[in-house]
Amino acid sequence: MAQLLVDRRDVSFVLHEQFAAGELGKYEQFAEVNPKIMDMVVQEARNLAIKELLPTNRTGDEQGCSFRDGQVYTPEGFQRAWQLLVDGEWIALDCSPEYNGQGMPSIVMQSAWEYLLAANMAFMMAPIMNHGAGKVLEAFGTPEQKETYLRRIYSGDLGATMMITEAEAGSDLAQIQTTAHKNADGTYSLSGSKIYISQGDTDLTENIVHLVLARIEGAPEGTRGLSLFLVPKYHIRPDGSAGERNDVVCTGIEEKMGIHGSATCSMALGSKGECLGTLIGQENKGLSIMFHMMNDARLMVGSIGLANASSSYLYALDYARARRQGNMVDDRDSKYVPIIAHPDVRRMLMHMKMFVEGMRSLHYYIALCKDYRTLAEKDGDKEKYQDLIDILIPVAKGYVTDRSIDICNLGIQVYGGYGYTKEYPVEQLLRDVRITTIYEGTNGIQANDLLGRKLFIKDGNLPERLTAEILEVVDKARKYPDLEALAHKLASLVDTWQVVAGQVKQDIGNGQVQNAFVHAYAFMDITGDMVMAWMLLWRACTALDKMNGEGKKKDLKFYRGQLKSAENFIGTVIPVTFGKANSILEKCGAAIEIEDEEFGAK
Amino acid sequence: MAQLLVDRRDVSFVLHEQFAAGELGKYEQFAEVNPKIMDMVVQEARNLAIKELLPTNRTGDEQGCSFRDGQVYTPEGFQRAWQLLVDGEWIALDCSPEYNGQGMPSIVMQSAWEYLLAANMAFMMAPIMNHGAGKVLEAFGTPEQKETYLRRIYSGDLGATMMITEAEAGSDLAQIQTTAHKNADGTYSLSGSKIYISQGDTDLTENIVHLVLARIEGAPEGTRGLSLFLVPKYHIRPDGSAGERNDVVCTGIEEKMGIHGSATCSMALGSKGECLGTLIGQENKGLSIMFHMMNDARLMVGSIGLANASSSYLYALDYARARRQGNMVDDRDSKYVPIIAHPDVRRMLMHMKMFVEGMRSLHYYIALCKDYRTLAEKDGDKEKYQDLIDILIPVAKGYVTDRSIDICNLGIQVYGGYGYTKEYPVEQLLRDVRITTIYEGTNGIQANDLLGRKLFIKDGNLPERLTAEILEVVDKARKYPDLEALAHKLASLVDTWQVVAGQVKQDIGNGQVQNAFVHAYAFMDITGDMVMAWMLLWRACTALDKMNGEGKKKDLKFYRGQLKSAENFIGTVIPVTFGKANSILEKCGAAIEIEDEEFGAK
Repeated sequence: MAQLLVDRRDVSFVLHEQFAAGELGKYEQFAEVNPKIMDMVVQEARNLAIKELLPTNRTGDEQGCSFRDGQVYTPEGFQRAWQLLVDGEWIALDCSPEYNGQGMPSIVMQSAWEYLLAANMAFMMAPIMNHGAGKVLEAFGTPEQKETYLRRIYSGDLGATMMITEAEAGSDLAQIQTTAHKNADGTYSLSGSKIYISQGDTDLTENIVHLVLARIEGAPEGTRGLSLFLVPKYHIRPDGSAGERNDVVCTGIEEKMGIHGSATCSMALGSKGECLGTLIGQENKGLSIMFHMMNDARLMVGSIGLANASSSYLYALDYARARRQGNMVDDRDSKYVPIIAHPDVRRMLMHMKMFVEGMRSLHYYIALCKDYRTLAEKDGDKEKYQDLIDILIPVAKGYVTDRSIDICNLGIQVYGGYGYTKEYPVEQLLRDVRITTIYEGTNGIQANDLLGRKLFIKDGNLPERLTAEILEVVDKARKYPDLEALAHKLASLVDTWQVVAGQVKQDIGNGQVQNAFVHAYAFMDITGDMVMAWMLLWRACTALDKMNGEGKKKDLKFYRGQLKSAENFIGTVIPVTFGKANSILEKCGAAIEIEDEEFGAK
Repeated sequence: MAQLLVDRRDVSFVLHEQFAAGELGKYEQFAEVNPKIMDMVVQEARNLAIKELLPTNRTGDEQGCSFRDGQVYTPEGFQRAWQLLVDGEWIALDCSPEYNGQGMPSIVMQSAWEYLLAANMAFMMAPIMNHGAGKVLEAFGTPEQKETYLRRIYSGDLGATMMITEAEAGSDLAQIQTTAHKNADGTYSLSGSKIYISQGDTDLTENIVHLVLARIEGAPEGTRGLSLFLVPKYHIRPDGSAGERNDVVCTGIEEKMGIHGSATCSMALGSKGECLGTLIGQENKGLSIMFHMMNDARLMVGSIGLANASSSYLYALDYARARRQGNMVDDRDSKYVPIIAHPDVRRMLMHMKMFVEGMRSLHYYIALCKDYRTLAEKDGDKEKYQDLIDILIPVAKGYVTDRSIDICNLGIQVYGGYGYTKEYPVEQLLRDVRITTIYEGTNGIQANDLLGRKLFIKDGNLPERLTAEILEVVDKARKYPDLEALAHKLASLVDTWQVVAGQVKQDIGNGQVQNAFVHAYAFMDITGDMVMAWMLLWRACTALDKMNGEGKKKDLKFYRGQLKSAENFIGTVIPVTFGKANSILEKCGAAIEIEDEEFGAK
């Protein structure tokens, strides 16, 4: 079977044609990065993904992680795969070279990692944790923490985790009960239990660094009293060698629907009273440090969704081209045609195609915003890119992972009965991707964040930041006769979106808070649809530019495919988006007004 | 944990209040059936479901069926459960007493089986096959086949299968290669390979009867040359005892995403040249006999979807009432409130509630139509009920199973991270229910059936049959001030639906066949939404009648919950339905026009 993870032509299109990522090379920070180097990195990631990670994906699912005598064991092949990640310096691709990072632009990491995530999402939970925890230490760690731990996290010499969740503290971090007692030497003694800790224990590395959210004795209740601590599995001696075992242990792992290759651990801290850690950042500032990390983590989760969706699409497309069943709907004499010829199969493939493309463009665009935010010299520019990232995060996480589930679900559907069996890869993709709407803030929380926070912060300027960017593409598209009608429809959707956003803000201002929030999810949906249409119209403009300009003849079909995606999205999805907008504008409050008992089963 | 399968108050509401099923007792055929008897049957089914079937559901998932030495072994507890089904005479609840059936109305079977299906869908695949195969024999079997086999199928003394699918013949039955050679004694010798045969082998019964679709040597190509055969695992001697082993063997079982407790078998017929069967019905009429069975099978699949969705809803509701996290969105001083208080959780629960209720009413309504079709003395009445069943089947199967997946997906989402673990039942419900959009005709085939067949047959009268019934409820609802606005919106949707159906028919008439069919799925969606609104408005009328009449005070909250469902559905879903209708009316043909290569990855 072909190795079907990510459409390389499309990656190249987004990177170089839609977003001209090579322009980054004009800045001193990325002076060594040019389009050729970018392509080499992506190509290497692709090789690694196909040759090494993909073969471990199914065995990882079948074997899962196991837990014996307080130790987690990863499935066959994961240790080798980890070593290859370490050797190839893939973990900290876009991190600071000062601490073993590779210093590449984020958009390069985005495209390289898309292959790795598509090949084995469960395995990639390990480098994801290293990358995320490392970024926290890079921003908030003491020089000593960075020297001793960060460099080893980025190199992959150590594993890393984020220890946040407890049994009574899932979405509600105010309930965190783990405590920290300050010792005379400035260290802290931690005590408590955590659950759902990804990579809480592993055999990929000998030592692990846990970043633990806990409450210092006497600290305020709620989230204002949380602090973040660095708690290693083994202390590290001044010479760098592993010292004594710390009192933080894995007590069990979860049986889950998917990502069996990633251990989800229950952890006990200080059950012998000897769990020692050091503070990261200031006391009682744990939550805001966490949130610094959280934004990147949410984008990563969206990327995981995209990667699984991308793979499911390519498998389904490949299958639909090869599998023969039935006759053409308008030609009874045709027999045993490839199922891609059936209108309903085309509908499904088209749905998968346009969303995968729109989601890819969105994630690469946000990565590029991160790069330009880093490069920006003026405060105003920095702020602009940060604003765009901020308003797009709920879409890039919440909306994108919802669509990823839809797409992986359709992947099974295109295969028919075969798709439901473990003989084909598509059912695993759905089971694995299912977690993405939950972790790093459920999608409901993303929707609330968009409606209740992102519409209001910075004097409510974020929506206009977004619509200004969209309307730039609309203006460009208006100049192409082929795109004029599509541009007009998107412009009209932007108008409607502004009306809806205005009403929702007004409702909240008028104290109809619950009634506004009950439509938060629909609002995230219409925002996401608008963003997809923006990205697909942008792609169509780029494709037309190339078709009319220096584009190669062999790429003509690829470019035409871009026009079709935009046309189909704006022709079939956007009318439904207007319906969703109307649904919000109708302000039905039944789901708020209904009493708890009226839900039934009492 | 509470046993949460089906809301018994709602079952009673639909059975007695919405549909007055007790009226059936006025007819001679059901003279012994009164509301009290109905309730007793349902109550017994509920007990069996909760006490016996539910405990086998999780172990069935964990252990799965196994295959050793040519024999399938079911998980622990399945043999006992089967014996209880047999002893309680549950298999043929609505079948002819002449052949061991119980002669109950279909609507009673629908409500009793909803509990059984919700408790263990995988286990229930066995009685489902008996029920379906039995119905075929009841309609088309020879007196001898009925006497020897049908009575034992209905009693559960034998197992049964439908052997249709082959590796190259999934949705495309024209490709069936299994052959039958007519012997001098009137029997047939079969030869071929089948795949995906549910219950192809089992240890629940000693003997199994297979109904096999095959092609008699020399028969026409395509589906016109298919005949149906009765092929027992062991021949049955004239005295009723098991005779020689027939040459039909299970060669393996599939590993699947879910329904692990149901063996999905590969079967070899005649590998020793000794597979003997007898013809069912006439030669070359196999397909039309199959289709007789297929309608019931499709309704059953929809019921399976409903049952899983019902259970997922009740689990989620129970969890949302007990689990505490976070503060009210409009009250920062509130702490650690039950998550049912959060608007987005209410949105999810409300979504689950209204669809489960609408789907339940639809399936019970269709069962009632089956009963009145049986009872009808005038041809016109018979035809009316058959027409309603015919046009509703694609919705009851395709639309309902899609919504069931949505609901089971939301069930996980309400649980958050817990829902993704195997500690809670909701992830299994999603894995199990995932098959329902595929088997017995994929949902794409359901959509094509609605658009390409049901809109056209019988001089195109079916749509009006449906809308006439809907408008009756609309007229009734207009008389209640509380429902007037809702009734008006549904009436307007009916108008729009007729416009869309008209356009689609016209497009097909004008030769724009593929362009019409590419919107078939959206058309099934809007049809389903309209049907849900109809059922929910009907429920609301019934609830108001009761609130204004003889309804009990303790039921007030239940009735109010009915009003909320209708209000929320018509207020939040129907605006989106209009959007979907517009999407069809726009006639975007991009998914047809796109060339195969333009889908990419080439």
